[in-house]
Amino acid sequence: MYFKVISLNLIHSKFNPPKYYVILRMIVMKEVYLNWHKQLREEIEIISKVKWKKLGRTPRIVVISGMGGSGIVGDYVQVLANRRSDIPVFVTKDFKLPVWISDEDLVITISYSGNTRETIMCYKEALKAKAQVVVISSNGVLEKYAKEDNIPFIPVVKGLVPRASLPSMLTACLYTLEKFGIPLTDRGELEEAIDILRDGICEEEISEVAGKIVNKLPVIVALTDYAPLAWRFKNELNENSKIPVKVEVLPEWAHNDIVGWEKPYNVENYVALLLEPKIHANELELKILDFAKKYFREIGIETIEIPLYGKSLLTQLLYGSLYAGLLSVILARERNLDPLTTISITKYKEYISKHIGV
Amino acid sequence: MYFKVISLNLIHSKFNPPKYYVILRMIVMKEVYLNWHKQLREEIEIISKVKWKKLGRTPRIVVISGMGGSGIVGDYVQVLANRRSDIPVFVTKDFKLPVWISDEDLVITISYSGNTRETIMCYKEALKAKAQVVVISSNGVLEKYAKEDNIPFIPVVKGLVPRASLPSMLTACLYTLEKFGIPLTDRGELEEAIDILRDGICEEEISEVAGKIVNKLPVIVALTDYAPLAWRFKNELNENSKIPVKVEVLPEWAHNDIVGWEKPYNVENYVALLLEPKIHANELELKILDFAKKYFREIGIETIEIPLYGKSLLTQLLYGSLYAGLLSVILARERNLDPLTTISITKYKEYISKHIGV
Repeated sequence: MYFKVISLNLIHSKFNPPKYYVILRMIVMKEVYLNWHKQLREEIEIISKVKWKKLGRTPRIVVISGMGGSGIVGDYVQVLANRRSDIPVFVTKDFKLPVWISDEDLVITISYSGNTRETIMCYKEALKAKAQVVVISSNGVLEKYAKEDNIPFIPVVKGLVPRASLPSMLTACLYTLEKFGIPLTDRGELEEAIDILRDGICEEEISEVAGKIVNKLPVIVALTDYAPLAWRFKNELNENSKIPVKVEVLPEWAHNDIVGWEKPYNVENYVALLLEPKIHANELELKILDFAKKYFREIGIETIEIPLYGKSLLTQLLYGSLYAGLLSVILARERNLDPLTTISITKYKEYISKHIGV
Repeated sequence: MYFKVISLNLIHSKFNPPKYYVILRMIVMKEVYLNWHKQLREEIEIISKVKWKKLGRTPRIVVISGMGGSGIVGDYVQVLANRRSDIPVFVTKDFKLPVWISDEDLVITISYSGNTRETIMCYKEALKAKAQVVVISSNGVLEKYAKEDNIPFIPVVKGLVPRASLPSMLTACLYTLEKFGIPLTDRGELEEAIDILRDGICEEEISEVAGKIVNKLPVIVALTDYAPLAWRFKNELNENSKIPVKVEVLPEWAHNDIVGWEKPYNVENYVALLLEPKIHANELELKILDFAKKYFREIGIETIEIPLYGKSLLTQLLYGSLYAGLLSVILARERNLDPLTTISITKYKEYISKHIGV
């Protein structure tokens, strides 16, 4: 068993935590990211032991339900499916499912904790709609329900904060889809991803980027296929570094947001991070990224290129996710903030618990 | 024929336009918005004359392809479908379609000008995939192609800037879906929408909101069903008022973005606009909106409630869109900027024209 997050049960909401404590927490979180390659391999081990009673029917449509660090897995799978699958993938991040879900569909509910209220409500609706249902989780109410309801349950690596379990949840989801006749990746691509995660990323380079972000509002700019990664950057910077972030997706950006910078005010408040796939077939898309980069520079906004290495889209997404994770914990250290604790999410969860029963 | 936008063919890129000119352009644009009720009725007239050679087969899935002011129509239709349809609606804002599109699907391509490069490429891909295809446009290459290819063509009200033709394009799209066996609204709801658009919105109230936004970054906050309206607010403020905007959707916001404000810096740069449906069945969702509002207030960010009137979701979306339109032109006047011209989009279109042939 490799190094995992140990919850220290210390909450620092009203005062700044001591520096040594922040550094300790940062090291813990960074270690989790740097061990993603082991996490991915551990998940492959876990799913090899899952026993399916019967193989699923190939659905009309796959709906992935989840929130935050669990829900982002659906976004990753959606762009992979848009490039490879005969079956569409639809993502929902809400208390309710679309009414069109029927017994022809597959609903994959993902909740790392197994206790996400929104996802539990969707799980119940999916059963009512007589859809095929799968639960991906490490624990909680959803694991219990799945066992009671005789629903396939795919376990993920335990003992992490949800956002740090991305490789495990993503692998579990890809495995599930394969069982339903929807292969989105192959073993070679998974191995490429493991290799690139093992290689890690130069910390000096990331520290330099973190230094440029401090006290700015980062605008993460990505091509449509990489939009989920832009959202991931945002979520990681939100949760680990405690800063707001804005996301823009190309080419849609060039049809409205672009005008928002024509007569810019406060340009010094922003910094643009452009996600640049290093191996990419589509010349046109790279030209558009280039256009956006020059546009931001011309109006006086600093631009930073985040290179995405890897041959496959899967690897590029995972490499970029590792970058986002490391960047966000390094930025937390710069700001002297504990990357692990997310007090306001806890407050929200307590608030909605009062208003719904599960 | 009612008052429409007259292009004055004056471009002011390098200097500030004279005040009387800005006011004139603002009046033109405002008149277009205030006449939306007539535009919607005119579109009902137009589509009543469309001759379908045969009724379409009900598809497996509907894909709506479009960019900017045309693409947003797809987002509106998607949330309406999520509440009412047996058939899922998928929106794509890119140069390419998902590979899963087949002859079982319906692809609706929407481009007000008919010359949007991205949408033209998707149109061609849709034909190649042997999907059923419909074109919604006022003009351009897509109208020509549709006629050559014997593809159903639904005309919209002519002579507007794309973003100002929302009621017309949305009505055309809803009509198309009805022809394919997917009714998402009824005549009663359309009449309710026309009534509420005719009533207009108190300009004083909107001016007050505009005054609070000047020199800030607005964060538009909405529930999932109203997310397309939040994007619409963003796009209108981008294009008409020339300011950047950030969008947050509930409940997803409470799983990541919320943490970004825990240790906020520069809170004085932001203002939060919350889209609040005034008739809404779901108590839980209103509680969550309330939670978000209090959260922003506690950390010192000014919050503004934008009320959404109307019984149906369709009416609420159109009422909110009218609000967004008027707010954005009034803000343009405050900033002494021409709301009509969007120079940077033109630059982008010229740029990509060099890199792709149609």
